[in-house]
Amino acid sequence: MIPAGSALFTDFYELTMAQAYLSEGLADAWATFSLYIRELPPTRNYAIACGIEDALTHLENLHFTASDIDYLRSHHAFSEDLLACLRRLRFEGDVYAVPEGTAVFPGEPILEVEAPIIQGQIVETYLMNTVTAQTTLASKAARMVTAAAGRPLFDFGLRRGHGGEGGVRAARAQYIAGIDATSNVLAGKLYGVPVSGTMAHSYVQAHDSERDAFCAFLKSYPEAILLVDTYDSIAGVRRVTELARQLGDDFRARGIRLDSGDHDALSRQARQILDDAGLAHMTIVASGGLDETAMERLLAAGAPIDGFGVGSALSAVTDAPTLDTAYKLTEMKGAGRMKLSAGKRTLPGRKQVIRRRERGIAAEDVLARAGEPLPGEPQIEQVMSEGERVCQRHGHIAAARERCRRQIETLPAHIRALAPADPPYPISISPALLQLSGQIAATLR
Amino acid sequence: MIPAGSALFTDFYELTMAQAYLSEGLADAWATFSLYIRELPPTRNYAIACGIEDALTHLENLHFTASDIDYLRSHHAFSEDLLACLRRLRFEGDVYAVPEGTAVFPGEPILEVEAPIIQGQIVETYLMNTVTAQTTLASKAARMVTAAAGRPLFDFGLRRGHGGEGGVRAARAQYIAGIDATSNVLAGKLYGVPVSGTMAHSYVQAHDSERDAFCAFLKSYPEAILLVDTYDSIAGVRRVTELARQLGDDFRARGIRLDSGDHDALSRQARQILDDAGLAHMTIVASGGLDETAMERLLAAGAPIDGFGVGSALSAVTDAPTLDTAYKLTEMKGAGRMKLSAGKRTLPGRKQVIRRRERGIAAEDVLARAGEPLPGEPQIEQVMSEGERVCQRHGHIAAARERCRRQIETLPAHIRALAPADPPYPISISPALLQLSGQIAATLR
Repeated sequence: MIPAGSALFTDFYELTMAQAYLSEGLADAWATFSLYIRELPPTRNYAIACGIEDALTHLENLHFTASDIDYLRSHHAFSEDLLACLRRLRFEGDVYAVPEGTAVFPGEPILEVEAPIIQGQIVETYLMNTVTAQTTLASKAARMVTAAAGRPLFDFGLRRGHGGEGGVRAARAQYIAGIDATSNVLAGKLYGVPVSGTMAHSYVQAHDSERDAFCAFLKSYPEAILLVDTYDSIAGVRRVTELARQLGDDFRARGIRLDSGDHDALSRQARQILDDAGLAHMTIVASGGLDETAMERLLAAGAPIDGFGVGSALSAVTDAPTLDTAYKLTEMKGAGRMKLSAGKRTLPGRKQVIRRRERGIAAEDVLARAGEPLPGEPQIEQVMSEGERVCQRHGHIAAARERCRRQIETLPAHIRALAPADPPYPISISPALLQLSGQIAATLR
Repeated sequence: MIPAGSALFTDFYELTMAQAYLSEGLADAWATFSLYIRELPPTRNYAIACGIEDALTHLENLHFTASDIDYLRSHHAFSEDLLACLRRLRFEGDVYAVPEGTAVFPGEPILEVEAPIIQGQIVETYLMNTVTAQTTLASKAARMVTAAAGRPLFDFGLRRGHGGEGGVRAARAQYIAGIDATSNVLAGKLYGVPVSGTMAHSYVQAHDSERDAFCAFLKSYPEAILLVDTYDSIAGVRRVTELARQLGDDFRARGIRLDSGDHDALSRQARQILDDAGLAHMTIVASGGLDETAMERLLAAGAPIDGFGVGSALSAVTDAPTLDTAYKLTEMKGAGRMKLSAGKRTLPGRKQVIRRRERGIAAEDVLARAGEPLPGEPQIEQVMSEGERVCQRHGHIAAARERCRRQIETLPAHIRALAPADPPYPISISPALLQLSGQIAATLR
């Protein structure tokens, strides 16, 4: 297990660069780094920023243990001066970020770090890892919430998602993005995410017949959702109606779950069978290989599905399993810095994103220099000052979830939609930022 | 952070099923579960089993804490009898598995659990999560190793891969699959994976000129690999040759890294420039957006690249970010069990995989009943007995890496290759397993 704030969660080159900075006398030079998405995948019109809470926890607790230092010493690549400096290392910088649940677009900082360069550099890997992973997961979840069109949406994805704690944090990110509940019990305990779930195929198989399994389960959970597709979905639904007839008023199962096959056809047949048996109040939950496109198509076709369970497509983000994030130096000792690599050009200095709304709907984002007085709603706020949080944690997840809901609600309809947005959401660069950028680029090469 | 063996790392329905089993008097009924890949993604001809070591550590340490029980009680969904049973829960089962680094094919058990059904059920989520994630990562890495064709291959992927500890375990899985080194320092400390890395663009940007940056870095690391593409790759290479001329014998940089642009054209130009400057010994490392297909194409075209750094494609497994794994009940109280769902049919009982070789090359796998006497090499071995490991851990990673190398080396050439194998690797079902399967299926529905 990785203790919170383990500074060894880093790339080796962060440490060789630290060595070089120390040798050059640059250890205490302040630098600004900006973490942002370079480009969105073709199937994303926006991203939902997430992972910032974990990032701040890491920064608050940043440290190398004595045994970390011993391990580093064993490489014979670092001076004792550097090792002593690392052993003392704490994060003393300022951090600016958008709140979790904010809709973000390419080039817009999700998080900015101002710190002595060794500190800002060493934390790069963790900040990128946690923000990228959680933003990737939240952004996918947001699309699924859109596709479910108000129907309950359950996360069943832990088993095929990120390994270990990443899988638990995923449930948090997905909840912020609007998923209603998760099967992930640890996420329930750690983050207060609502949990749900009833039965698996193995439970049905463990009994001599499907009927025995349903009866036994309803004794423990009278209002369960019964999984009907272990042997034959339609036969399973009929078994439910037989049981309802036999048990009479004692039958209180709330619904059925279809986990395989043609969800459209099966849900229609199931609905008919349930309705004919006087079980119109029973709901139909669909799961098994569903993604947002399939969900949208099923609902558009009129499939009588009342809720969805999603697994791999959500937790492994099968269409876009990562985001093209970057963490770039934008300022050094007060002077703006840029990179001009092909396709990876950066903009200098600390920034602000101003969202301009028209009649309540987001009309344009302006990428500006920090502090530039422009009309609109600034998205980035200071969250850490000299290594200490300056934001509240209390009620954070609920607030982030509500923010996310409002942010998505106020995006233009074609940006919210699943289809690739044409045109994409408009982002402009402020005149002041353009001017600074031009000045600095001219001095490079 | 999640403590080792946290039984709360589970899906909620594992617990509702546990409640039902307990109420039915089935808590102590022994059951067999089988974890396997249902189908491989189109871009995988085989998978490399990984994650078993973590799975066993989880089982060895399995427990619910008092606060876990309090959390479960708060759901008002579980009896005090069940909560008491969970508080006492330890894993007491037997486990059979293929060793890490084994090449596996669809339907072949990676791991089988025989245990009291509540135990076998509660661990499902963790076992699937860790084996799926790490097998997914190792399987991708193996393809990249093939593509690199003997050239050094470096993992730079932590920043855009699985969140948290999953990212650290990824480096271990990738090393088993043959990656030479990782940038991931924590993986180096925890697992002994070799680490490497030199400089980032930010280091170049932090200096007033690229030349200053190279000079400063070489003072700390005279044999560094210099990153040349911060402003203009070819200008960067020329800067390296100028520096070599000026420093004379003091210039000992080992190579350059190209991290953007057209790797084919740039590597050829860079090679020419270096050779013309008498720097034929300097190596060229390519990185930036590379996957196994790009690597294979570059080498086939004759690009003079001596090593590769891979990031997102490796760590986020962009083409196939998860595997279609299952964990299915195959036996209950000594009787084989099956599931007949559309496209998800299972085979009953505990199994063995027999690999038959011809002239040293794998010719066919036979999926058989455990203990069935068949010619060939059995792949599955017992790894845990009554909750205790029966396998050695010492030297495990090196052994797994060597096993993986030999396993891949002895696959048929078209299975090892990157292109989809046609025909796929042959897998047959033994007559005894077929017969049992037919008998049981006839009793179902």
